[in-house]
Formats: sequence, structure tokens, C-alpha cells
Amino acid sequence: MDIRSVVYILGSLLLFLAVALLLPVPFALYYHDGTAAVFGYSAGLTLVAGILMFKLCRGRRDLHVREGFAVVSFSWLLFALFGALPFVLSGAIPSPLDAIFETMSGFTTTGATILTEIEHMPQSLLFWRALTHWLGGMGIIVLSLAVLPMLGVGGMQLFRAEVPGPTADRLKPRIQDTAKLLWGVYVILTAVEALLLMGGGMSFFDAICHAFATMATGGFSTRNASVAAYDSAYIDTVITFFMFIAGANFSLHYYALRGRVGTYFRNEEFRFYLYITLGVTAVLMWQNHDRVYGSLLENLRYSAFQSTSILTTTGFATADYEQWTVLAQYLLMFTMFIGGCAGSTGGGIKVARILLLLKHGLAQLFRLIHPRTVRLVKLGHQAVDPEVMQAILGFFALFMGVFVAASFLLAASGMDLISAGAAAIATLGNIGPGLGSVGPVDNYAHVPAFAKAVLIMCMLLGRLELFTVLVLFLPSFWRK
Amino acid sequence: MDIRSVVYILGSLLLFLAVALLLPVPFALYYHDGTAAVFGYSAGLTLVAGILMFKLCRGRRDLHVREGFAVVSFSWLLFALFGALPFVLSGAIPSPLDAIFETMSGFTTTGATILTEIEHMPQSLLFWRALTHWLGGMGIIVLSLAVLPMLGVGGMQLFRAEVPGPTADRLKPRIQDTAKLLWGVYVILTAVEALLLMGGGMSFFDAICHAFATMATGGFSTRNASVAAYDSAYIDTVITFFMFIAGANFSLHYYALRGRVGTYFRNEEFRFYLYITLGVTAVLMWQNHDRVYGSLLENLRYSAFQSTSILTTTGFATADYEQWTVLAQYLLMFTMFIGGCAGSTGGGIKVARILLLLKHGLAQLFRLIHPRTVRLVKLGHQAVDPEVMQAILGFFALFMGVFVAASFLLAASGMDLISAGAAAIATLGNIGPGLGSVGPVDNYAHVPAFAKAVLIMCMLLGRLELFTVLVLFLPSFWRK
Repeated sequence: MDIRSVVYILGSLLLFLAVALLLPVPFALYYHDGTAAVFGYSAGLTLVAGILMFKLCRGRRDLHVREGFAVVSFSWLLFALFGALPFVLSGAIPSPLDAIFETMSGFTTTGATILTEIEHMPQSLLFWRALTHWLGGMGIIVLSLAVLPMLGVGGMQLFRAEVPGPTADRLKPRIQDTAKLLWGVYVILTAVEALLLMGGGMSFFDAICHAFATMATGGFSTRNASVAAYDSAYIDTVITFFMFIAGANFSLHYYALRGRVGTYFRNEEFRFYLYITLGVTAVLMWQNHDRVYGSLLENLRYSAFQSTSILTTTGFATADYEQWTVLAQYLLMFTMFIGGCAGSTGGGIKVARILLLLKHGLAQLFRLIHPRTVRLVKLGHQAVDPEVMQAILGFFALFMGVFVAASFLLAASGMDLISAGAAAIATLGNIGPGLGSVGPVDNYAHVPAFAKAVLIMCMLLGRLELFTVLVLFLPSFWRK
Repeated sequence: MDIRSVVYILGSLLLFLAVALLLPVPFALYYHDGTAAVFGYSAGLTLVAGILMFKLCRGRRDLHVREGFAVVSFSWLLFALFGALPFVLSGAIPSPLDAIFETMSGFTTTGATILTEIEHMPQSLLFWRALTHWLGGMGIIVLSLAVLPMLGVGGMQLFRAEVPGPTADRLKPRIQDTAKLLWGVYVILTAVEALLLMGGGMSFFDAICHAFATMATGGFSTRNASVAAYDSAYIDTVITFFMFIAGANFSLHYYALRGRVGTYFRNEEFRFYLYITLGVTAVLMWQNHDRVYGSLLENLRYSAFQSTSILTTTGFATADYEQWTVLAQYLLMFTMFIGGCAGSTGGGIKVARILLLLKHGLAQLFRLIHPRTVRLVKLGHQAVDPEVMQAILGFFALFMGVFVAASFLLAASGMDLISAGAAAIATLGNIGPGLGSVGPVDNYAHVPAFAKAVLIMCMLLGRLELFTVLVLFLPSFWRK
């Protein structure tokens, strides 16, 4: 373990964060919300820390697999710590724990908030919240399509982006090329959504913040009532569409933007993702039929928004689904476990893993009556390497284990049964709102401090595909 | 698929059931409860059906793997149907669906009841209920230690009983020898428990019924208040001890009875089972500390009883654990998923599978930093065959899938969130009581008819390790 290399890279990432911390300054000045200096201080502190780490550990840079894990885990942790500075320094979120919760929720694109009065916050801080989502989403796209596959985490090798570009053996240039192409797609989609939202009457500020939160499948809104505040069928439709896009694999979008739209439907994960979205929407419409919404179109609007919001792990709300039927709530709760596609900004177990788990279960069933036939599980036309399948099965076992442990700790902190379980999966799956006391019209402010710490850890674990963080707890990780 | 052979064997099993249906007659006569004739008719009907099937399909008997699955699944189904006759014919449970629910709950050693006034039932019917448990437990021991390992179901090959005896290549003698030895253990333990319970003041009748329900990890009691009705520390202690025994692998008991007690502690699954029991008891004691029970010993008595009852999937109650803390309830709910040891009469996922799932998850974590080291997961000193591991992982994926589907159907039938989830795992894990409206002081009488049908299926699926039943739904199972 070459700690100096890790610190060096983390330092350079902090320099990047320092620059990002200056982006809300124009908003602070425009809205005269008095936080421009706060962002200046925060950027300065981050810059100093970054330069120190960068300078002290300059030199030989050896990036092996272990250093990769450390860089990924600690970068999210450091970003949550330094990114929390504006909240604390401005006094908007006085408690450091709450501020770290909010920032971790931002960078992990979770969208769980401890804010009770969002609309009373300075605009620049609301922009910063949205920006943490967007930067986090940027990180996740590269992480899931370029970094984690190389580290071999949880079967992610299946989803290595096959974006054309100079094939090099060395790690760095490959990641950079992939990153540039995918970020281009991300930026374009965000810009298009923001323009469409402005076309629906949203202010420039709200449109940017919501586009950031949508494309990152984050879910932070600038309004207390989330997207419901706009009460617009057009805005709901635009956001539903872009949530669905954000929950799909970004390398498919890359091909689509280059004119190869058919790639979507040749992708088995995408097809399954589409079926789940349609299926969940249909069941929600059935459950909401004649009860809540007047017309079929209204029903479709609210049902499709909520199914997409939960499945993609965005967590925006246009309806208080806790008023829906028990079945509808149950379905949404289970949907939280599924999450978005691999290579999207969505969290959860991931559609492809769920699909492969089901296929593995069925393959085991077939084996019983055809013991001599070797059937490899396939994704698309490609047989899945048994080692990758093992990793996916291991991921599932660990995911359920972490879910159980987290719910247990949350219940121990005094949360009720439904809220504890829902909070655990809503953070582990990077969704945001859950059920019970952390439902779509509630927030996480009331949660005990110990539980907040557990939830922060859940967001990090879920976002980094568990293994990346858990591996740091192995004693042998730190040994030579 | 040789359907004639299957029908032939099912017919001969019905002949055995017909004999069993006569066993409650002495109780009917002794207690003058007027049901002697009912058992006579039931036995007669079963005998006629059995003879018809037996005679019509006599001839060549070719027992291959497929026939094995069909025999196992249909035997439990037929036993639940014919075993329900006394309840319906006596008018004690007028609804056939309810009667089948009660009988399936008996033969699968679940212990979920639709009876609201148990103590008003004729004694002979209460004995029959207890006997369905005991016979079901008998079936399960042989199934899990001799039949399923040969069929290769869900990794059960790991737990093939290594009971000494004439090794033969043919299936039948091997199963018979194993069965005889293990049933001997089962009978001895049941007799000892019944005697100990009588020593504590229980009537002969109650002692037998409770010993049957304990050793089968069933949970049917002859009293509305379950074991709490006796309010005896001695009886609680005896039952706690025997529940723990019934939840352990019966081949270990065989060795212990032959003087090799150390075998218990050389068995890794048993050690883990012991640790979980002690751990859950300790947490329950902590949660019940100073709140519910006066002394430490009282606390131990109730906490140990409940942790053992749920973990072994027995489902007896001495306390209304829904009055306990949220954490205690959560822990019991998760414990329901674990279940007893492989080769015990307990249900659930099984301790060994949970242990191997955790080990597999950790092994995948290790692989990330030691990619070149091949580490096979071990149970005890033995490496687990990767194919067996695959089967166990597939079992887990299917178990969670069936749990989700069943909870969903139960919620669709109108049950509330907690009750639906708890009822699904309480039946799938063959425990009996759950939480919410199906808690330890409630019953399943109020559950909608559709939900009862789902729960009957859950009991069957859980008891037969899923695969055995699910394989019948594969179209290729029925093709030549």
C-alpha cells in the first residue's frame, strides 16, 4: 500500500473541489445572500489542504489496485467533509454531523436531507447542494464504467464501457478518454433538460438545480414540496423522462447520441429496466385507479413519476405515496432494492445484477433436472464468466447483510420498524426518501445522531458498491 | 417422467397416512369427544384412495431424480389434503381451505394456526394436529439428510448424513437405513421430553402434544396462550432445551447418543448455531433489561425461550414479543430468515447456508486484494465444492425472490405492510407466528382466503427447500 500516492491523488482531487466551491459565488453575489465569503473561505481551506497533501506526497506515483480502493473511498469521504464547510461556516446547518450528512447525501446522489425549511436557505447553498449531486454523478459514471471494472468490484467488469478510443495498457489514459466522452454526454443531457424545464416556466436557477439533481439521480429539490411544488404536468413529464435516462447506462446514451439508437434495445439490461419501469407504473396505476387521481392521464402522470423516481433512485416526489395503498408502498419499497442500470448514476443493487441473480436461480433449478448440461448464465448474447457471477452473488449476500446490520443499528437508535428498514435501504440504495418517519413528505432532521452516522456510512457503502469501502476494513488490505 | 411410479409410491404413502389417522381414535374414545367415527371415515377414505393408486399403478418401479421431486412435493400436498379430512368431517374447521391451511401448517412443522379457540377443540383433533407436526418432522429429517442430498437440492449435498450402515449403490436401502437410525433418535428424544414435561406437572396428553410440537419445531400448542399457559419456569426450560436440540442436525444427536458428544463442537454449523442463539438471547436480555422482567433469571427465561423458539422456527410463545422494544422485534424478524441447522426439523434458510453466504461474501472481498489466490470457502475443515456453493447462492436468490413475491401478493390481498412481510417469512421459514396482525398472540383466522392460499404455498415451498417444488413448474420437467 503506497499511502503517499493515495494522499497525492486525494490532494489533487481536493484542488478540483476547491475550484468547484467557487462556482456558487456568482449566485451568492447575484442573490445578495451574503454567503460569497463563506464559499471563498471554504475554497481556501480546501485549497490549502489539497496543496499540502499534493506537495508533501509528490513524487513516484504507483497506482495499483489497493491504492485504487483507497483513493475512491477516501475521495468521497473527503469531499463530504470539505464540501460540508459552506453549510457549517454560513451557519445554515450549524451541526457538523448534519452538514456532513447533507453533503454525503449530495455527493453520493442520495438526496436524503436534514433540512426542514429548504426555501429559507440562501440560494447559493441550494446551488451547492445541487452541484454536489451533479459532481457526484459525474464521479459515479466514470467509477462504474471505467474504474470499478478494472478493480474487479462486484461483477462490474461486465459493464466496462466499450467506448472507442486509443486502447492503451496503462490505466490512466484509458480512464481519461472514457471519462471525457461520457461526461460530454452527461453535460449535453443536463443542458437539454435545464432548457426544457425553463421552457415549462421554471426559473433559470430552479431549472439548473433540478437538472443537476435529475441527471445525477440525486433528488435534492430547491422546494420543500419537491417537484410537486410546480404542479405542472409538463415539468413532471420532462423530469420523468430524464430520470429514466439518468437511470440507464451512459455508454448507451453515447451510442444513441452518435445516431445508434437501436443499441438501447439490443441491450438486455436496458430492456429489463424498461419492463420493470412499465410494470411498476402499471401496478401503481391499478392501485391508484379511481381512488386518488381523476383521469387516466393524471394517474399515469403521478404513477410514472413515482415509479421512475424510486427505481432510478432519484427520490423526487410529486405525491405523498404513503397515502397510497399498502401494496403500492410495498412495491415501491422493493423497487428501492433494484435501483438503476449499471453505468448509470442510479444506485441500488442494479438492474443487471437483479436480472443475473434471477437467471442464476433459474439455472440452478434447471441443473436439477438436467445435471449433465452445463448452462452458463448469459447477459445479452454473452455468457457471464463464472467468476463474475460469483462476484455478483457475493455482492448480493453482502448487500443483504449490510442492510440487515444497518436496519438493526437504526432500530437500536430508537427508530420504529418501518422507518428503520426504509431509511436503511433509502440510503444504501442512494434513493433519499423512504417510508414511515422518513417518507416523501418528511426529512431526516429528527433522526438521532447515532443513526445519522450509520446512514452516512450506508450512503457511502451503497454508492461505492460496498466492496470498495469494505475492503478497507480487512487487516490484510493494509499489510504489505 | 414415470408418472405411474410416482402414483404408486404416493399410494403407499397414503396407506401409511391411513394408519396414522387411526392413532387419535384412542384419545377420542378416552375423552368421549365424539370424533372416533370421524377418524375412522377419514382413515377409510385415505385407505381407499391409497389402495386405488397403489393397485392401479403397481408394476415396474423406476425411481429417477425427476420422480423423486414429484414424490416429495405431491406427498406433502396429499398429506395436507387427506390430513384435513378429520377437521372438515368433524365440523371443527368447516372451511376446507382453513382445514388444509391447518394441516399443511402441521405437516410442514410451521405451526401457524387459523384456530381462535384452541381449547374448545376435541382432544383427539388436538392430538391429530400435534401428530401432523411429528410426522412432518420425521419426514423432514429423512428428506434433508438422505433424499434431498441425493437430488442435489440447494446445496443439501453438503449435509448428507454419514450414518454408518451398509453402503449400497441403490437409492432405497440407503434411505431406509438412515431413516431408521435417525428416527430412533427422534423417538427417544421425544419420549424423554414428554417424560420431563410430565414431571413438571403437564398432563400425559399435553406432554405428548408439546413434545411432538417441540421435536418437530412445529409450534402447535393445546392451549390458546401457547406455552405461556403453564407459567412454569421448569416447563419453559425443558422446552427451550429441546427446541434447541430439535433445531440442530440430527446426525449429531445420533453420534451424541452413541457417546461421541464432542462431535457437536467439532461441527462448525453447530457452533455458529450456538453463537447465534446466545447472541440473540443476549440482545433480547439487554432490550428487556429492567423493563419487562423482574429478575435476571426471569429475563433469561423469557428471552432464551423466544430466541430459541424463533431461531429454530418452532414458534411457541411464552411472551407477547410485540410488547418488546422495536429492536427486539426487528432482531426476531431477521432471525426468522436464518432458521435451524441443516438436517434438523427447523426451517428457514438454514444456519449453514447463512454461514456460507457470509463466507462467500468475505471471500469475494479478499479476492479483490489477492486476485491470484484461489480461496475455496470451507465448512469445518472441508472445502465446499464450487457447484454446491452456486446452489446455495441460487437458493438464497430464489428465497428472497419468493419472499418478495409472496409479501407482494399478501399486501395485494389487503394485509398491512408489517403483517404481510411477517406472514410471508413466518410461513416460508416454517415458523408460525409473525408480527402485526399475525403476531404471537394472534392467529391466521382473519387472513383473506386468497392470502391463505398464498401462505399454504409458502409453507410447502419453504419446507421442501424451494427447488423441490419450483422444479415442477418448469415445462421441461414434464417433457421426456
